Amino acid sequence: MVQPKPPTNPINLTQKASLIDQQWSPRVVAEMNDYQFKVVRIEGEFIWHSHPETDEAFLVLEGTLRIDLPDGPVYVAPGELYVVPRGIEHRTAAEGEAKLMMIEPRGILNTGHEGGDRTAVNDQWI
Amino acid sequence: MVQPKPPTNPINLTQKASLIDQQWSPRVVAEMNDYQFKVVRIEGEFIWHSHPETDEAFLVLEGTLRIDLPDGPVYVAPGELYVVPRGIEHRTAAEGEAKLMMIEPRGILNTGHEGGDRTAVNDQWI
Repeated sequence: MVQPKPPTNPINLTQKASLIDQQWSPRVVAEMNDYQFKVVRIEGEFIWHSHPETDEAFLVLEGTLRIDLPDGPVYVAPGELYVVPRGIEHRTAAEGEAKLMMIEPRGILNTGHEGGDRTAVNDQWI
Repeated sequence: MVQPKPPTNPINLTQKASLIDQQWSPRVVAEMNDYQFKVVRIEGEFIWHSHPETDEAFLVLEGTLRIDLPDGPVYVAPGELYVVPRGIEHRTAAEGEAKLMMIEPRGILNTGHEGGDRTAVNDQWI
């Protein structure tokens, strides 16, 4: 028997993203089953990587998200959703700062299987 | 081996919701693994129900969502996220129209296990 969890307050996504003290540092704001909602501030280019085990959803809150894909870039505006399919190499980027919400299973690293010094500490809440 | 799926275009959530011809009729706009992103236009009150098998996430796009819960209502504004935990009785409502995005596993009915004439046809894309 699953024990019902107590309801929490609504989460203002842009406000939560604004509280993060550095770019490229995703912070968890909520969970749904074994998935996590994370917010992040980004600027410049990330590294190419993929997540062989999962799709990854991006919702843009502020600014413009560029997602570089094998066939070229996709530009995602505020209020727009984009799902990067599992196994697809991609690189997130933004000219000027962009604030995003990401959705992915608990335990997924921002750099996928690439690792390296851009790998953020995982499972940090804000 | 999972075959990578081709990327699609970014999805403007509010625009998609505006295309739905009737209220209380969720439409799928994207999928992430075995989860679906749905948009819906609502006005007035739904029925009390619960989803014993899953949490359910709501993101408000326009208007104000009221979620009635056992301990009282929660009001969710545009740009805010709220996750109703599995097994918790709830009733969505809006004074005037609200546009929402919902996230839940594929196959979940809007009325949970209550059924009845408010049950929407499932898995309809827009």
